[in-house]
Amino acid sequence: MDSILIETEKLDRPQEECGVFGIYGHPQAAPLTYYGLVALQHRGQEAAGIATTDGTNMYSHKGLGLLTDVFKHGELEGLSGYAAIGHVRYSTAGANTLQNAQPITLNTHARNFAIGHNGNLVNAKWLRIRLEQEGSLFQTTTDTEVIAHLIAKAGAQDLTEAVASAVQQIQGGFSVVILGNDELIAARDPLGLRPMVLGQLGDAYVVASESCALDTIGAEFIRDIEPGEVICIDAQGLHASRFATRRARKMCTFEHVYFARPDSDVDGWNVHAVRKRLGGILAEQYPADGDIVIGVPDSSVSAAAGYAEASGLPLETGLIKNRYIARTFIQPSQELRDVGVRLKLNAVRSIVEGKRVVLIDDSIVRGTTSRRIVRLLRSAGAREVHVRISSPPYVSPCHYGIDTASEGQLIAANNTVQEICELIEADSLHFLTVDDLMAGFGFAKGDAVPFCNACFTRNYPTALIDQSLSSPHHELVHVGGATVGSL
Amino acid sequence: MDSILIETEKLDRPQEECGVFGIYGHPQAAPLTYYGLVALQHRGQEAAGIATTDGTNMYSHKGLGLLTDVFKHGELEGLSGYAAIGHVRYSTAGANTLQNAQPITLNTHARNFAIGHNGNLVNAKWLRIRLEQEGSLFQTTTDTEVIAHLIAKAGAQDLTEAVASAVQQIQGGFSVVILGNDELIAARDPLGLRPMVLGQLGDAYVVASESCALDTIGAEFIRDIEPGEVICIDAQGLHASRFATRRARKMCTFEHVYFARPDSDVDGWNVHAVRKRLGGILAEQYPADGDIVIGVPDSSVSAAAGYAEASGLPLETGLIKNRYIARTFIQPSQELRDVGVRLKLNAVRSIVEGKRVVLIDDSIVRGTTSRRIVRLLRSAGAREVHVRISSPPYVSPCHYGIDTASEGQLIAANNTVQEICELIEADSLHFLTVDDLMAGFGFAKGDAVPFCNACFTRNYPTALIDQSLSSPHHELVHVGGATVGSL
Amino acid sequence: MDSILIETEKLDRPQEECGVFGIYGHPQAAPLTYYGLVALQHRGQEAAGIATTDGTNMYSHKGLGLLTDVFKHGELEGLSGYAAIGHVRYSTAGANTLQNAQPITLNTHARNFAIGHNGNLVNAKWLRIRLEQEGSLFQTTTDTEVIAHLIAKAGAQDLTEAVASAVQQIQGGFSVVILGNDELIAARDPLGLRPMVLGQLGDAYVVASESCALDTIGAEFIRDIEPGEVICIDAQGLHASRFATRRARKMCTFEHVYFARPDSDVDGWNVHAVRKRLGGILAEQYPADGDIVIGVPDSSVSAAAGYAEASGLPLETGLIKNRYIARTFIQPSQELRDVGVRLKLNAVRSIVEGKRVVLIDDSIVRGTTSRRIVRLLRSAGAREVHVRISSPPYVSPCHYGIDTASEGQLIAANNTVQEICELIEADSLHFLTVDDLMAGFGFAKGDAVPFCNACFTRNYPTALIDQSLSSPHHELVHVGGATVGSL
Amino acid sequence: MDSILIETEKLDRPQEECGVFGIYGHPQAAPLTYYGLVALQHRGQEAAGIATTDGTNMYSHKGLGLLTDVFKHGELEGLSGYAAIGHVRYSTAGANTLQNAQPITLNTHARNFAIGHNGNLVNAKWLRIRLEQEGSLFQTTTDTEVIAHLIAKAGAQDLTEAVASAVQQIQGGFSVVILGNDELIAARDPLGLRPMVLGQLGDAYVVASESCALDTIGAEFIRDIEPGEVICIDAQGLHASRFATRRARKMCTFEHVYFARPDSDVDGWNVHAVRKRLGGILAEQYPADGDIVIGVPDSSVSAAAGYAEASGLPLETGLIKNRYIARTFIQPSQELRDVGVRLKLNAVRSIVEGKRVVLIDDSIVRGTTSRRIVRLLRSAGAREVHVRISSPPYVSPCHYGIDTASEGQLIAANNTVQEICELIEADSLHFLTVDDLMAGFGFAKGDAVPFCNACFTRNYPTALIDQSLSSPHHELVHVGGATVGSL
Repeated sequence: MDSILIETEKLDRPQEECGVFGIYGHPQAAPLTYYGLVALQHRGQEAAGIATTDGTNMYSHKGLGLLTDVFKHGELEGLSGYAAIGHVRYSTAGANTLQNAQPITLNTHARNFAIGHNGNLVNAKWLRIRLEQEGSLFQTTTDTEVIAHLIAKAGAQDLTEAVASAVQQIQGGFSVVILGNDELIAARDPLGLRPMVLGQLGDAYVVASESCALDTIGAEFIRDIEPGEVICIDAQGLHASRFATRRARKMCTFEHVYFARPDSDVDGWNVHAVRKRLGGILAEQYPADGDIVIGVPDSSVSAAAGYAEASGLPLETGLIKNRYIARTFIQPSQELRDVGVRLKLNAVRSIVEGKRVVLIDDSIVRGTTSRRIVRLLRSAGAREVHVRISSPPYVSPCHYGIDTASEGQLIAANNTVQEICELIEADSLHFLTVDDLMAGFGFAKGDAVPFCNACFTRNYPTALIDQSLSSPHHELVHVGGATVGSL
Repeated sequence: MDSILIETEKLDRPQEECGVFGIYGHPQAAPLTYYGLVALQHRGQEAAGIATTDGTNMYSHKGLGLLTDVFKHGELEGLSGYAAIGHVRYSTAGANTLQNAQPITLNTHARNFAIGHNGNLVNAKWLRIRLEQEGSLFQTTTDTEVIAHLIAKAGAQDLTEAVASAVQQIQGGFSVVILGNDELIAARDPLGLRPMVLGQLGDAYVVASESCALDTIGAEFIRDIEPGEVICIDAQGLHASRFATRRARKMCTFEHVYFARPDSDVDGWNVHAVRKRLGGILAEQYPADGDIVIGVPDSSVSAAAGYAEASGLPLETGLIKNRYIARTFIQPSQELRDVGVRLKLNAVRSIVEGKRVVLIDDSIVRGTTSRRIVRLLRSAGAREVHVRISSPPYVSPCHYGIDTASEGQLIAANNTVQEICELIEADSLHFLTVDDLMAGFGFAKGDAVPFCNACFTRNYPTALIDQSLSSPHHELVHVGGATVGSL
Repeated sequence: MDSILIETEKLDRPQEECGVFGIYGHPQAAPLTYYGLVALQHRGQEAAGIATTDGTNMYSHKGLGLLTDVFKHGELEGLSGYAAIGHVRYSTAGANTLQNAQPITLNTHARNFAIGHNGNLVNAKWLRIRLEQEGSLFQTTTDTEVIAHLIAKAGAQDLTEAVASAVQQIQGGFSVVILGNDELIAARDPLGLRPMVLGQLGDAYVVASESCALDTIGAEFIRDIEPGEVICIDAQGLHASRFATRRARKMCTFEHVYFARPDSDVDGWNVHAVRKRLGGILAEQYPADGDIVIGVPDSSVSAAAGYAEASGLPLETGLIKNRYIARTFIQPSQELRDVGVRLKLNAVRSIVEGKRVVLIDDSIVRGTTSRRIVRLLRSAGAREVHVRISSPPYVSPCHYGIDTASEGQLIAANNTVQEICELIEADSLHFLTVDDLMAGFGFAKGDAVPFCNACFTRNYPTALIDQSLSSPHHELVHVGGATVGSL
Repeated sequence: MDSILIETEKLDRPQEECGVFGIYGHPQAAPLTYYGLVALQHRGQEAAGIATTDGTNMYSHKGLGLLTDVFKHGELEGLSGYAAIGHVRYSTAGANTLQNAQPITLNTHARNFAIGHNGNLVNAKWLRIRLEQEGSLFQTTTDTEVIAHLIAKAGAQDLTEAVASAVQQIQGGFSVVILGNDELIAARDPLGLRPMVLGQLGDAYVVASESCALDTIGAEFIRDIEPGEVICIDAQGLHASRFATRRARKMCTFEHVYFARPDSDVDGWNVHAVRKRLGGILAEQYPADGDIVIGVPDSSVSAAAGYAEASGLPLETGLIKNRYIARTFIQPSQELRDVGVRLKLNAVRSIVEGKRVVLIDDSIVRGTTSRRIVRLLRSAGAREVHVRISSPPYVSPCHYGIDTASEGQLIAANNTVQEICELIEADSLHFLTVDDLMAGFGFAKGDAVPFCNACFTRNYPTALIDQSLSSPHHELVHVGGATVGSL
C-alpha cells in the first residue's frame, strides 16, 4: 500500500491514550456504553470495544477504528446484559493492532473478567518482567494486561479485593474499569493523574473518563472518583473504599489545556471556562498589537474567546477546519505534499488579508504545525502574526498517559522562546508561565496546587521506574489487523 | 437491520445536493480531485466518485459513503490521466444507491463522456417523459442522466456544442462538469443559482463548487464561472462562451446563510464575513436582554461572533458539538430515544447555568431541533433563552438543489413568529427580514439584488414546470448498495 | 496490488457466460431465487444479482463475487415480493465491473423492468451502433443493455409484446428473463443455442438455465423452453407463444461436454449420461494399452467412468482437486510459479506410480493445462500417459455465449493431433470425431442433428454480423468495483 | 441477524479440528505457508493465520474465514522472514472467534514465540485449572494456550527443551508447530493420534499435517514425524529427538476413513488406496442385489470405486455435489427448510430412476444426513437403496481432535444395525467390522494394529482425565469477530 495517513494534528499534538466507560444496572447497558463512548471518542480513535455481562455469561466485541466502524453490523445486539464496560483507544502506529484493543477479556482460576484502562504506568515494564519470570504469559503489549495479571495473581476470592491488591502494585496514571460476572469496579490512581467521574441514570450507576459522557446518555453527575479510590457496583449498590491513603492530588493540567471536551467538568473545573480564563490571562500578561484574534480550531477556540474579550480585539474565524478526515498520499510532487495541512485547515483570505493577527494556540509541541499555520496565514495576506500560547513551554515528555514526542523533538526543550518564535516564523510569541496557568484555576503564586505540571516543569510526581530498564524483547508485529471471514 | 441513522441535522436542516470538481492538465489529476472533493465534503457525504481520462481511455470509480470510504483500497492509483472530474453527493435516504452515484459514465455514438452535477432542475421530469417517449432508457433517478441524454441526443460533433445544446434545454439550478476524452467542460445555470469557481494550478485549470477547494489544493482563484457560461478546457487552453444571454443573477442566498464553508468566497462575498455581518445586523435590530451569546455550532458560529461584537455581550461556547458521527438505534425506552440530540450537541452547564442566553442560529426549518436545543440549554440551567435567527423565516421549499422539508413541514410556513417562539419554547424569537439579509451583502432596501430568496419570499425566479406532473413510475429500490466480492 | 488470481481452469477452459433464474407467484421469491442461483453458480462466479417485485415497487441488489459474498449482510430481506429474477455472471477480467452486473433495472416511458441474460449476440455491436445513432445512451458494455434498449423502443403497451419485438431483432444465443411490475417473461433464442427450462413449485412457475436449479428448490420440471418461444407468467397464469418460426434446433453441444452440471437434463438428455456414453465410445474407438483410467476432475469424471466400464480397466482417483479457491501471487522464483497448477490438482503417487495411465479429459483448448497435467502425472511416477478427449478438436471460437481463446490460441486450430500429442507430451492422444460425439446422443452418421457443433466444425448456424465491425469506442474502465460506505 | 449457516455436512459429520504447517529456511516462507495451508484447507475453514520470523522480529496475521478471506488485502506482503508457521482452524460455532484463531503469539520472560496446534488434549482442563491456580491468565479457550503456558513455565533457556518439557505434560492427540525467533519446532503426540509429515524444499525444511501440502508446494516427502518426537530446525539444520519413549502407535483410523485428502499418504498408507480397498472388502463381505453403485461425494468416491470394481456393478455419478457454499436462511415454510440438503447434493433422476442403488458412504454419525440422502434417491426414482458403510458403527465420541456429536446423538451408540436401517429408511444396511477395517490396511484378524479405533470400540488408548471435571467457568462470548476500522 503506497498511501499513508498524515494527520497534521497527529504528528504534532500530544495524544491522549484512551477513554473508559462503565455502567451497572441498566437493561440497555450496551447501547448506553456505545453512546457514552461516542462522547469520549476524542480521547481515542484507533480502536474501540465493549464487554457486557448478563450475570451468567460475558459478551464482548472490539475492533480497530471509530465506534461507527467497529459496531456497524449489529454487533451491539449480541452484547446482552445489564452491565458493561467500554473503551476507546489511541495508540502509536506500530502497536495499533486488534491484539491490543480493549476491553481485554480474561479467564482466571476464580472467574472471568474484562478490563479497560486509560493512562500509563511507570512500572509496567518492571512488573511485566517480574510476572514473566514467574511464568506469566503476555499476548499484548499493553499495560492493561499487566494489571490483569496482577488481578489474576491476587488470589482473593473477591474481585474488588483482587483489583485493590493489583492497583496497589502499579504506579503512574490510571483510570481502570473492570467488569466481573455481576459487578462493575472502577479505580483511579492515587494522584488523580487521569480523570474519572461517577454518575447515575435512574437506578443505574455510570463511570466515565469525562462528564460529557454522562451528559450524553442523560445521566446525572454525582462526583469525581477520588484519587486512590476503588468503587464496586453490584446488586447491593455502590461501595466505595480506598486502596491508597489520601495524599496531595496531582491532576493532569493538560486535560484542561488540550484534551478534555470543553463541555466536561474535570475535577471541579469546567474545561471551557478554564480555557477562556487562560485566554484572558494571556491577553492581560502578553498583549499584542493586533487587529483580530484567531484561535486554532477546535481546541483553542475557548482561549481565543477569552483573549478577545479581555483585549477588546474582535474574535474572527480566520482558520477553518475541515470536519472530514482524509487520507493523503505520498506523492512525488511538492504541490501534493503541501496539501496535507490545507486539507485540515484553511485560512480565510477576506478575514486575514492586511491584518495583524493574534493567533491563539493551546500548546507547541514540535513546532512544525505552528510554523505551517503561521505560513498559511501569511500566504492568505496576514500582515503580522503574533502567537500567544495558553500554556507554558512544553519541555518534558509525559509518562502518565499522554503520548508526545521524545524530549529531543520538543521544540521548547531545546530552544528559547525567542528561538521558537523565529523557528515558527512568528512576529512575536508568548507562553503562559506555570503561575499564569495555575491562576487560570484560581490559585495564587506560591499556593500548593493539586496539579501535575511535569511536562512544563520536569517535576514528576512519581519515580520513573521503567526508564532505567531496556526492552528485553524483539518485536511482535501484527500485520493488517484482523479479518472477518465472509462465510 | 433494526438500526437506523438519525442525524439531528439531517432531519431538520436544508440539505445541499452535491459538490463538483474538475481539473485539466495536471499529471496528478486524480489525487488533486480527491483532495478538492475532501474540501467539498460538507456539500455531500453519501456518495463520491471520480472519473479521469488519459486521452485514450477513461477510468472511473465511485461508491457510497465518504471519500475515505470510497477510496480506501488504492482505487486512486487506477485512475490514470491528466484530467478528471469528481463529485460528492447528498441524497435522500431512499435513493442513496450506488446506481445514483456520480460521475455517470456514458457511451454514445460519438464518444464516451462522464458527467457530474450539482443542483436541481425544474423541468427534469418533463424532459424525462419526452426522452422516454422517444425511446430513451433511464437507469438512475438523477437529473444528471437527463442532462446526459440531452447531450447524447444533441448530435453535435463537438462535445462543447452538445453540452451547450443540452444545457439550453434544462431549467433550474445547475453546476455541471463533463469530462470528454480530451477535454473538461463546465457550465453554470443562467441565473447563477448554484455556485462554481474557476482556478489555476500551474498550467492546469480547475473548476469547483466552492473556492475552498481551490485553496486546499493550492490553486489560485481566477474568477467565478458566469451564470449562463460554458467553459471548455482542452489542449488549446480555456475557451469560455455563453449558452444563455446575460440576465439578472439570482444566486442562492442559502449558500451564504448555511451551506458554503465559511472560508469560501461565493460570487464575490466571503461567507464568514457575510455571516458575521448578519449577526451584527441581528444584534442591532433585535437586541436581547441576555448575559451571554451562544451560536449553534458549526454554521452559526460566525453570526454569533457578529452578534456578540455588536451587542457587547460575551461570546461563549455554551454548546459543544461532537465531531464524531454515531449511529443511533431505535430503542424501546424513552431514555435512549433522547440520546439522539445529545450525541451531537451538549450544553455546558458551567457556562449557561443561571444565565440569560442569546442563542444564534442560522435558520429554523421544521423547528424540532430548535426546540431540542432550547430544552438542552434550559436543562443545563439557562434562565432564559432568546433565539435570534440570522435569516428570514423559511417559508417555501427550494426547487434548485436544496432538499428541505415540504411546505407542510416548514414551521414558518404555517405559524407566526410568536407561535414559533412558543413551539420552540423560547423566551423570545426574532428573524431577520429579507431587507436585513440583503443589507448583510451591502444592499439597501429597494435595491435590485442578485439573489434568489424564494425560500423566504415564495418568489421563484423560474417557472416550476415539473410541479404540475405526477410521477408515472412505480419505484425502483436498490437494496444494500453494491457489494464487492471477496474472491 | 501485486497479487493476481490465476486459476488454471480459467486460463484454459471455455467459460460459460451466465446463468439465469426466474420465479413468479411465491411469497419467498427472493430466497428461492438465491437458492436457484446457487445451483447455477458453476455458470458464473464473478457477479450476481436479484431483482424482485411486489406488484407496486421493484427491488434489486447485485454485486461482484459469489452469491455468498453478494448477499451476506441481510440484503435478501429487503427484496420483497412474489416474483423475482436472478443472474450469475462470468466475465472477462477487464469488464468485471459492477456496472456490468445483472439484472439491469430500467425505467422507460411505459414502465420499470429488470432484465438478465445468458448468451452472446452476433449483432449486438451492430444494433448498438444503430441505437446510439438514434440517441440511445449506454452505461454498460453488455449485450443485455442492447436488448433493454430494444424493449424500451418497442413502443408496445404490453411488456411481452415489447420483449417479443426486441428478441426478433437480436441474433445469436440467448436465454433472457425479464421482470415487469407484475409479470415474469422468459425468451430463448430461435436455435436453442442456450438452454432454459420451465418448472413448477406449488402454484409458482419457475424458469432457469438448467434443471438442477429446479431440483434444488424442489420444483418440478415441466419442459424445456422451446427455441423461439417467449413465455409470460402473470396473475392469469402462464402464456406461451412464439416470436420466431420453428426451425432446426442448434443446441450447444458444449453444454453437455463441459458446462452443464451432470445432474441437469438439457433438452432431454441427462448430462452425466451423455458424458458417460461419450467415455464408452472413446474406449471403443480409441482403446489404450493402459493399467488405469483417470478422469480430470470434475468435468471428466463421468466420461472416465464410461471409459473404464467399456474398457474393463480400473477407474482410479489419481488426480485430486482442491475444493478451495486460492489466490496465487506473482513471485520471482520458479518454485512459486509452479505452485499454481498444484494448488488446484494433485496427482496421487501411490496410484499412478509405475502405471500406464489413460487420462480422460473433456476438451483441449490451449493445451497448456493438458501438458501440466501430463507432467504432473509423470512426476508422480506414471510410466505412460495416454490422453483421450471426449469431444472433437476445438478449432473455432464460439460466438454464442462461451468465452474461449481466440482462434490463434486454440491448439487444435493450429496443429495436427500428432503435433498436439507432442506438445502436451502425451504418449498417445485421441479425440472423438463429430460423428462419435453425435453417437453419444444416439444419432447415426448422416442424421440431421439438432446441435451446434461450430466450435468443432467452423460451421456457424448464424451469420457473424459483428465480426466485420471494428469498435468505434475508446474504453471506459471502472476501477475497483463499487464501495459501500461505512456510515 | 436472522440468517444462519446450515451446512448439512457440518451437522452430521465428524469435524477435524485443524491443520498445521511450518517451514524454515526459505526466503518465501509466508507465501509457501499460504499455499501449504490451502492444501490443508479441508481440515478447517473457520479461521486461518500465519506467523513469520526474520530472525529479529516476528510478524503475524490471522482472521476468521477461509485463507482467501483472511489474506485478501496484501497482508502476506507484511509477513517477512525465512521461517513461518501456519494454521487452519475448525471450531464449533460458539467459539469461532478471532480470539481463538491461531497461531497464538506470545511474549515470555525468555522470548517471543508463536504456536499452532492440531488435536485435542485429554488433560487440558486439568492443566488449565492448575495453571490458573498458579496465577496464569487465559485469554482464549483453546488447548493451544495451555501448551503455551507450559512452555512459558518450563524455565528452560532453550526453546526446544521448553517445548519438550511442555509436551511431556500434555496428554491426548496433538501435532504442534512452534516458531521461535530463529527456529521452527514440531512435536507429535506419543501415540501418533494426529498425523504430521516432514519434507524438504531445496534447503528448506517443511512440516505439515498431511503430505498433500508438501506436494502442493513442490516439497519432497522425507518421512512421517514419529509419535513422541520433537523436531527442531534452525540455522544448524534439523535436530530430531524424543520427548516420550517409544510405545505402540495408535494412529487415528478416521483420518483414512474420512478426513484426510485422498492424495495424502498418512503414516505410510495412501488414503485413496485404503478407501478403495475398504470398498472392495465391503463388496465382498456385504454384497447387494443392486443395479448401480453410487458413492456419497466427495469422501466416499474412492470406496464406491472399490465396491464397484469388486462387485462388477457399474459405478455411477448419481449424486452431484454443489461446489459452491451457500447460506441457508431460517424460513417459515417447510419448502425452504428442505432446500438445505439439496443445495449441497442432488440426485440425478436419469441415472437412479427405476434402479436398485447401492449407496456407499464412509460413516453414519447421527443418521439424519443418511436418511435425507436415501429419501433424495427415492424421490429421484430409485427402486431400492442398499446402504453400505466403509467403516464400523460409530459408537463413541473422539477425545483426540475430532468433533462429533455426543454419545446420545450417535445413532449407532443407541440402535442396532437393523434399527438404523429402518431409521435411515434404507432397504438394507451393512457396516464393516473393525476387523474388516483393519484388513483394509493389510492386517489380519488378531494382529496387533497401530491404530486408535476408539470411536468404533470405546477402547480409548489414554485415560480421559478431563471427563471427570466440570467446567468452573461461565462463558465468554465474542460477538461478531473483529472489525478493521476504515480510517
